[in-house]
Amino acid sequence: MSGTEIDKLINEISKLPSIGRKSAQRIALYLIKNKDKSLRSLIQIMQEASINIVNCEICGNIDTIIPCSICQNNKRDHKKICIIEDVSDLWTIERIGIYRGSYHILGGTLSAINGIGIDELSINKLINRIKKQKVTEVILALSTTMEGQTTSHVIIDKLEVLNINITKLAQGIPIGGEVHYLDENTLSTAFESRKKVI
Amino acid sequence: MSGTEIDKLINEISKLPSIGRKSAQRIALYLIKNKDKSLRSLIQIMQEASINIVNCEICGNIDTIIPCSICQNNKRDHKKICIIEDVSDLWTIERIGIYRGSYHILGGTLSAINGIGIDELSINKLINRIKKQKVTEVILALSTTMEGQTTSHVIIDKLEVLNINITKLAQGIPIGGEVHYLDENTLSTAFESRKKVI
Repeated sequence: MSGTEIDKLINEISKLPSIGRKSAQRIALYLIKNKDKSLRSLIQIMQEASINIVNCEICGNIDTIIPCSICQNNKRDHKKICIIEDVSDLWTIERIGIYRGSYHILGGTLSAINGIGIDELSINKLINRIKKQKVTEVILALSTTMEGQTTSHVIIDKLEVLNINITKLAQGIPIGGEVHYLDENTLSTAFESRKKVI
Repeated sequence: MSGTEIDKLINEISKLPSIGRKSAQRIALYLIKNKDKSLRSLIQIMQEASINIVNCEICGNIDTIIPCSICQNNKRDHKKICIIEDVSDLWTIERIGIYRGSYHILGGTLSAINGIGIDELSINKLINRIKKQKVTEVILALSTTMEGQTTSHVIIDKLEVLNINITKLAQGIPIGGEVHYLDENTLSTAFESRKKVI
């Protein structure tokens, strides 16, 4: 593989998440072959993104305006805050369109292995927000992994004194899930949280 | 997903080969979160690549010099030309380091479905090269797919009159391959091409 520029390009692409060496080679070749179209247009769009995309100071969302279009939207219920790990969770929830409150993006979950402690997550910001926005309900929508659940507990501990409703998303059998495929934890949670139907 | 710049970035990334919508979202988020490091450095490297990487006029390789470093290398045997489909094949063969001749990149294989005819592949250029470089051997290293084999046959037809050696890579059981896993075609080819050992 000759030409340092080619190597550099492949290296840089292979640093991106979910891209292996082989895919990086394929993408680099594709970009070089389609220099006038794909490569130039990707460069331009990345430059625009680099200049225009900003973090919302209130909720941590990314947008081209500050505060973000959700925090600015008066039709949304800002007395409700849904706590999520990442912007991608916001996108997923917004796509479904069932939630009309605001969000708070933590920026991850507590993780000793990855060196993420309370100070790395925007929990203090959340507390200030709850006081300022006169929030009545905080909805925890974190992953049902060990880290997600630990983070939820820590947040519940911190918010307890504020005298607001704290809820978390229901846990149980996913829709379309077959019982014999379920793991032990999901199944026992579903049993414990069973609902009366008649 | 608010902010047209974000959508545009995700769209552009999802056009790249082997990247789905979900991966494009993950990559876009990663780039935006690491704006000052990853995004800017990727933009810079892409710009350098866009300016400096060129196609070799002789063999079709990509490099930062014209002719490419292989075509310019006097230590290589330019009386041998290895015909390959794509630059990635050159990288693979060069990595092994067993071949010291030059290359000729066709730019694909004949394919009615993809609209690639003889004129789309650099076959005429190859013929001119063979005459000019006084080539003695042409090694066909195309895929053993239907398209690759058809392309090999067409090239053999065209080169027949030039009175040079034309060889193709051996076909048979891949090293490490288990016989009971082999497909019918590979196995029958391996039988037909069997070699005397004693």
